[in-house]
Amino acid sequence: MDKNQYCIIMAGGPGTRLWPISRTGMPKQFLEIAGTGKSFLRYTYDRYARFIPKDNIIIVTTAKYRDLVIAQLPELKEENLLLEPYGRNTAPCIAYATYTLLKRDPDAVMVVSPADHLIFDEAIFEANVLNAMEYARKEKVLMTIGLTPTRPDTNYGYIQVTGGKNGCHADTAVKVKTFTEKPDSELAKVFVESGEFLWNSGIFAWTARTIMEEMEKYIPEVTKLFTGWEKALGSKAETDFINRAYTDCINISIDYGVMEKTDRAWLYPASFGWADIGSWESLLEFYPDKDTFGNAVIAGKTLMDGDYRNMVISMDKGKLIAIKGLKDYLVIDTEDVLVICPKNDKQFKDFMAGIAMPEYEKYR
Amino acid sequence: MDKNQYCIIMAGGPGTRLWPISRTGMPKQFLEIAGTGKSFLRYTYDRYARFIPKDNIIIVTTAKYRDLVIAQLPELKEENLLLEPYGRNTAPCIAYATYTLLKRDPDAVMVVSPADHLIFDEAIFEANVLNAMEYARKEKVLMTIGLTPTRPDTNYGYIQVTGGKNGCHADTAVKVKTFTEKPDSELAKVFVESGEFLWNSGIFAWTARTIMEEMEKYIPEVTKLFTGWEKALGSKAETDFINRAYTDCINISIDYGVMEKTDRAWLYPASFGWADIGSWESLLEFYPDKDTFGNAVIAGKTLMDGDYRNMVISMDKGKLIAIKGLKDYLVIDTEDVLVICPKNDKQFKDFMAGIAMPEYEKYR
Repeated sequence: MDKNQYCIIMAGGPGTRLWPISRTGMPKQFLEIAGTGKSFLRYTYDRYARFIPKDNIIIVTTAKYRDLVIAQLPELKEENLLLEPYGRNTAPCIAYATYTLLKRDPDAVMVVSPADHLIFDEAIFEANVLNAMEYARKEKVLMTIGLTPTRPDTNYGYIQVTGGKNGCHADTAVKVKTFTEKPDSELAKVFVESGEFLWNSGIFAWTARTIMEEMEKYIPEVTKLFTGWEKALGSKAETDFINRAYTDCINISIDYGVMEKTDRAWLYPASFGWADIGSWESLLEFYPDKDTFGNAVIAGKTLMDGDYRNMVISMDKGKLIAIKGLKDYLVIDTEDVLVICPKNDKQFKDFMAGIAMPEYEKYR
Repeated sequence: MDKNQYCIIMAGGPGTRLWPISRTGMPKQFLEIAGTGKSFLRYTYDRYARFIPKDNIIIVTTAKYRDLVIAQLPELKEENLLLEPYGRNTAPCIAYATYTLLKRDPDAVMVVSPADHLIFDEAIFEANVLNAMEYARKEKVLMTIGLTPTRPDTNYGYIQVTGGKNGCHADTAVKVKTFTEKPDSELAKVFVESGEFLWNSGIFAWTARTIMEEMEKYIPEVTKLFTGWEKALGSKAETDFINRAYTDCINISIDYGVMEKTDRAWLYPASFGWADIGSWESLLEFYPDKDTFGNAVIAGKTLMDGDYRNMVISMDKGKLIAIKGLKDYLVIDTEDVLVICPKNDKQFKDFMAGIAMPEYEKYR
């Protein structure tokens, strides 16, 4: 293992997309992956620990999730847990991690990763990430891991590469032409058919110095808040410093703030098999053990009759779930919320918008 | 009040029709009527206590429900609570009550009543029942209270009166021609249109002596088990006697065992407004506070969108029930059972037949 290689795991997301299983008090990254006894975060950590020194794996999360992280990663050293007072999207999170890392190791090369993705081939993943990091270190570029799309998914971001439809070859980094956030379904189809677009995995590789330079160039309003951080770090003033920085900080993603603007954006076309389970629909798609009628059932005792392509989840394994005649529905039963809703992603999102009303706050 | 008048309330039913709210451990008669704080049994008791001496109101129930009855009717004297070791339908229950009553008062005239019906006009009810009892005492007949059907309900029994379509006049007892148990919907339509049929309320009026005579004539296999009961009653042998009698006793209804065979069956046409909420469909029909879209919702916090004519019940008032796009469904959420099923009675019954499988025993 290379002592200059670091992994930054961003584990502060509020996890509202898989509501009501994922809650603001227990977001997706801390949830157990069906029946395995290990959370998304724990899986992510272990996956990087195969090839990154454990002392170089840093978790950034929101302060309120501190105890959850420590419970799931008891071996994590205190200096490797960075606490944000509240979430401000990925750019401030990455700035916080980068300036912290630069003091520790000015030659650091980092992989920056979400905590809640599914990765299907860990060996290929290791090879792909190490190659991307190596390329980023050598060429001083901002590398995004991209994946060849298998369907026009509207929940993912897309990256267009230079060189047209033949511009992209497995395991060969390529310069980025454009970034597009979640497109509508027509645009997504065009993207997929063109052969020029890859899914944006949200996994990045770069040196601390390169990302610092580009952040200071494109989002100085964020980076200037970290002026003097190298002195505060490790002192009593540390928490106050971060609290003040975040109070003044805008909410901005690294994609929007830096990647879409810099001319140093490159893409590494990976092939490890990847999914960001960001919606109930995609969870149903990836669920391995569907019954003959296409139902994905994660529950204790069930009695079903005339049900097709539903996703049924009950958190209470002692409860009987008896359902007749439902097609293409989500049924999610938690201790304090029961949701019955068509599983069509758009319908579910529109419906769930109702949950934003103040009267439902305790159920969020 | 007449000291020879008695009321026998049959409160031993297993209450499986309104599953999963009504359970074998907590059948319908012990459930609170929506929001009132009083159970069906308590309502029934209070309704008779308006015109029957309280000391003459006797509850027959299954031994396992003893504590429930005492909790709901704390004023009930011990000698007015008759415990069956297990349910054997209405004929043995009535035999048990009749022989017990005959020892206490050979001139007793009884009204025999289910514990779980809805009665809409208590004053008319009182007048109707007192008239029926008086007629039964005077004429020594077996009187059933009948009600003019308002729809071809297939969940009720029907009684045909003599004298054709003009044979039946309000408040005038009439001789019975035939009894029919729950008919199919075509037959029910013919019955209602003919004008010769009334609903069988399951409420009977007779003297203890008359019903004894007819039971001894038509179901001697039941009555012979009570030979010697007048000696055992009040002694240490009482419980053993009843346990033995019930062990040997067949399961038989008073309608099938006696009423359909005797030539002393009469009907009293009542007009107090009556419903036997024996199905979810009928509960929805009678539920008073439906929303604009025809949904009957008995729950704490709800978020509904595009839902029509559903019955939604949640026993946990702290739980959020969020439902989108359901039409004509039952959604019933209890602590250990969640049912989602079309509210069409037949479909629900067919579905619920699955619950009879041994693996679901703990949820019954």
